[in-house]
Amino acid sequence: MLDLLRRHGPLSRSELGKRCGLSRTTLHDILTVLLAGGAVVTSAQDTAPRGRGRPAETLTLNPDAGQAIGIDFARRAVHVAAVNFAHEIVGSASEPHAADLPWEDRVELAERLVGTLTGGALRLGALNAIGVGVVGPVGDPGDGAASARRLDGLPGLLRKRFGVPVLVDNNTRLAALAESIWGAAAGGQDVLYLRLSHGVGGGLVVGGSLHRGMYGLSGEFGHITVDPAGARCDCGGTGCLETVASIRAVLDAYNVAGGRADDVPALVAALESGDAVALDLLRDVGTRIGIVLAALCNAIGPGVIVIGGELTATGAALIGPVEEALSAHILPISRHRVHLRRATLGEAAGALGGIALVLHESPLLSRYPATEPDPAEDS
Amino acid sequence: MLDLLRRHGPLSRSELGKRCGLSRTTLHDILTVLLAGGAVVTSAQDTAPRGRGRPAETLTLNPDAGQAIGIDFARRAVHVAAVNFAHEIVGSASEPHAADLPWEDRVELAERLVGTLTGGALRLGALNAIGVGVVGPVGDPGDGAASARRLDGLPGLLRKRFGVPVLVDNNTRLAALAESIWGAAAGGQDVLYLRLSHGVGGGLVVGGSLHRGMYGLSGEFGHITVDPAGARCDCGGTGCLETVASIRAVLDAYNVAGGRADDVPALVAALESGDAVALDLLRDVGTRIGIVLAALCNAIGPGVIVIGGELTATGAALIGPVEEALSAHILPISRHRVHLRRATLGEAAGALGGIALVLHESPLLSRYPATEPDPAEDS
Repeated sequence: MLDLLRRHGPLSRSELGKRCGLSRTTLHDILTVLLAGGAVVTSAQDTAPRGRGRPAETLTLNPDAGQAIGIDFARRAVHVAAVNFAHEIVGSASEPHAADLPWEDRVELAERLVGTLTGGALRLGALNAIGVGVVGPVGDPGDGAASARRLDGLPGLLRKRFGVPVLVDNNTRLAALAESIWGAAAGGQDVLYLRLSHGVGGGLVVGGSLHRGMYGLSGEFGHITVDPAGARCDCGGTGCLETVASIRAVLDAYNVAGGRADDVPALVAALESGDAVALDLLRDVGTRIGIVLAALCNAIGPGVIVIGGELTATGAALIGPVEEALSAHILPISRHRVHLRRATLGEAAGALGGIALVLHESPLLSRYPATEPDPAEDS
Repeated sequence: MLDLLRRHGPLSRSELGKRCGLSRTTLHDILTVLLAGGAVVTSAQDTAPRGRGRPAETLTLNPDAGQAIGIDFARRAVHVAAVNFAHEIVGSASEPHAADLPWEDRVELAERLVGTLTGGALRLGALNAIGVGVVGPVGDPGDGAASARRLDGLPGLLRKRFGVPVLVDNNTRLAALAESIWGAAAGGQDVLYLRLSHGVGGGLVVGGSLHRGMYGLSGEFGHITVDPAGARCDCGGTGCLETVASIRAVLDAYNVAGGRADDVPALVAALESGDAVALDLLRDVGTRIGIVLAALCNAIGPGVIVIGGELTATGAALIGPVEEALSAHILPISRHRVHLRRATLGEAAGALGGIALVLHESPLLSRYPATEPDPAEDS
């Protein structure tokens, strides 16, 4: 019914009844619920009066009812996104900040960004919650204290600001979810998402559900060992994929090899000028990524792999070797069945995934536990 | 209600009503269904008459109602297993055969083995289906023809013999399912099962459901590349885990290194005598397995890893190095959260998994599509 109102605009009760094919009684019952919940509003100003009698009552989606908000507190930026009641993306906004900005300032920044999307008036309507992405593992039932320490009262701060419950999950996992709903893998049942950014992480949609793993620690593709004799990783391990495929690792390796690039755009410029050192380096990095992806495909059997993160701006120089290595190392009978795609949602993905967490009716979340933190940690 | 009858034995209607706490009407409705379906039978011979009046009617599980049968058509053996209505394992039986034995002979062998478990009288009761494990991938919707060719009419042969529908899946995946229901990971929501046998394979229980992957190709751990410069694998790849960790690969490597063993028991004997070549070899194999398992843990986040297959008879010589490498390469914060266990169901695991496929009400199968092959392939 909401979909009909979305697609057709304002409709009278009888028009709506005809189009949805429900009995008068059922229609009445459902509309009563939708009107009471504020999802649908009535208007007596019919644009085309039917001749005699009072004008037919017209039903429309409530423009105030439906913005859902997601916030991604990344390492060095806040991203926000909004979708309307029909789950269409309304807009997104971002602002970078220093890595050590206190939570209170980040929350204030988030509130300001949300204001730019909603015209200053936040209307959470029937959704009545905000979905939030954060860096690092979330959701280990045995690790509540450590998780609360790291989040440092963030859920409480947000609840105070926005006055609604707050759902929190890892922002990369949320990006995987968003790409599977609105992005490169829209509608995918088995999706593997890899993000190549300051860190290397990912997420899994498995059999139609976002997957967390036993301790909220799934999708940690960046910490898969690719070189047991490799560099020390921040996680405490050695030779993790992150030590060769993060932005920092790639730039450092390029500069050590005689190149000169301080950021990804500079590296992209070098690639575009045909710089052999940069091309060789990305071939090596892409090959390592492809071997890891092939291993994961053999284990998990996704239909779509989505690669996101700033490093994908290097384009075919990276993605080409990834595809070659994936094809060479995947089980041959799976070779042409897995589709590799670039992420399409950009830096808004984490915030959009936060919204998906709120739109809990998504089939992708049907088996996914709600992750609202314990209220005790607000104090 | 069935569980109460299983645990308490025969009960009167009023005793059953008291214990399950349901209303008289609800109790009556449920019992009507159970009696009609043959799951429960009544008996007037009350062992303890209540003084005056006719003896209370007693309800028991129908001993004839409930054997469920699973069959595993492995490469060189047929395994069968049976569980009773209460889902307890009644028994299992196996018989080896030549690798090229025709399907008709294998089916005849299966029927004979089933007869030894059921006393000659097969009573499938309310379950009314047989679950069957086979070698190789099963369940790719785009590969029906190839799958039918490989199965070569097996489902039709079985249906003719047993007169009930036949459900088919990969036998290693079924073993993973069985270990998660009756075996080393009983009750596990996130279980990774690895089998080290003539081939190397596995299966995943993910978020409480057996996972198949987009094309029925999940759990192919044996074809994860562990050495890009390694040996050619039967799958067409190079340096797959199977090329270093299958029974044949381990025995060949041992013999090339100067040892002498034609089968796993001989290798176990060498290990028990402290043979340094064998110990070093298994340390190397175990390390490679542990690195793969660590990668999969980082990606998927299981709570339990179960290792099965004949090669686990090498015991601590293999499992020790697996655990060390797993611990060294898993994300440090996950280190003490994943439990590594030896499989407990032995060679019956695949057949038991077949039964689980039939007991479709298992929560582990709640999101798992039934895999009854197209009747068209019987002709």
